[in-house]
Amino acid sequence: MKMLKDAILNQGKAINEHVLLVDSFLNHQVDVALMDAIGAEFAAFFKDKKVDRVLTIESSGIAPAAFTAKYLNVPLVIMKKQTSKIMTGDLLQTEVRSFTKGTEYQLTVKRMFLPKGDNVLFIDDFLASGEAAFGALSLIKKAEASICGIGIVIEKSFQDGRKRLDELGIPVCSLARIKHMSSNTIEFLE
Amino acid sequence: MKMLKDAILNQGKAINEHVLLVDSFLNHQVDVALMDAIGAEFAAFFKDKKVDRVLTIESSGIAPAAFTAKYLNVPLVIMKKQTSKIMTGDLLQTEVRSFTKGTEYQLTVKRMFLPKGDNVLFIDDFLASGEAAFGALSLIKKAEASICGIGIVIEKSFQDGRKRLDELGIPVCSLARIKHMSSNTIEFLE
Repeated sequence: MKMLKDAILNQGKAINEHVLLVDSFLNHQVDVALMDAIGAEFAAFFKDKKVDRVLTIESSGIAPAAFTAKYLNVPLVIMKKQTSKIMTGDLLQTEVRSFTKGTEYQLTVKRMFLPKGDNVLFIDDFLASGEAAFGALSLIKKAEASICGIGIVIEKSFQDGRKRLDELGIPVCSLARIKHMSSNTIEFLE
Repeated sequence: MKMLKDAILNQGKAINEHVLLVDSFLNHQVDVALMDAIGAEFAAFFKDKKVDRVLTIESSGIAPAAFTAKYLNVPLVIMKKQTSKIMTGDLLQTEVRSFTKGTEYQLTVKRMFLPKGDNVLFIDDFLASGEAAFGALSLIKKAEASICGIGIVIEKSFQDGRKRLDELGIPVCSLARIKHMSSNTIEFLE
């Protein structure tokens, strides 16, 4: 997706070989026109998958996922990294470790918002080792729902998350695939 | 806003006199068509305020704020409740206490994403005692930017946040104002 790749090249900053700073357009300051275009792109890619709902993780996935859900005309469900005292009832949970941020969290969703049998499209901002995606897959499985696709804004193709998802036969759409990066260069796969 | 009030009456649940559960359409499962309509409503209300950027707090404010920013054709900036090791540089911070959730957090934004002199529209899901809004005002002041309006999806008018903001002369647009609620009833102010 040219508009996204241009944003990465012009506004992104590779801190080192593993960390890409995109806080000027994706996860702190947000280029909403770009998010809208990303939503349209994901919706077009997955239009034949009979998507019942879009699933994402707070908070950087929300903007691209919201526009995707709007274009698909389905509800969005936001999995929580933190629960609150008013989040009660039948909860589905799994532990996820973020390598980039060096943190662990309990990914949580109310079972009623992930109905049995639903076709779920998972959207996230980054795919690296796939920990967040596999956390989502774990909750979708616990809910007895089905994954019909995964939409990723930026894929770090030099990590093994994409390979692990491909091996499961899940349709993955990554809008920018980074082959290699260093503090001076960002190189795309295709 | 009728569409929103209908969602509150039909899908919301007053847990007690202070806590309103709206996780089926606003902050866990999200009705994206409603968020889009909310964005259009805020954009129309503040169209003459020369808004330079929309500001919100992760994570429940992001969906309504993203659609507002889209309609106003300006960037969205998401203030963080948690920082990460890749969030460095010149940070503006203030402490906010959430009465509903019983938690405290450091509200954080990079100074570069809240430029001096910008007209800022703050959007949030709830206004109760106004702690989050006053946290936002504190950061806007530290940034030497200006607040040009506050858009609130659901106002708990029985708490004093709205009164405190009105006293400062800030234009506030609340799309649903709740006068009173109990476990059986939700009553709107207007």
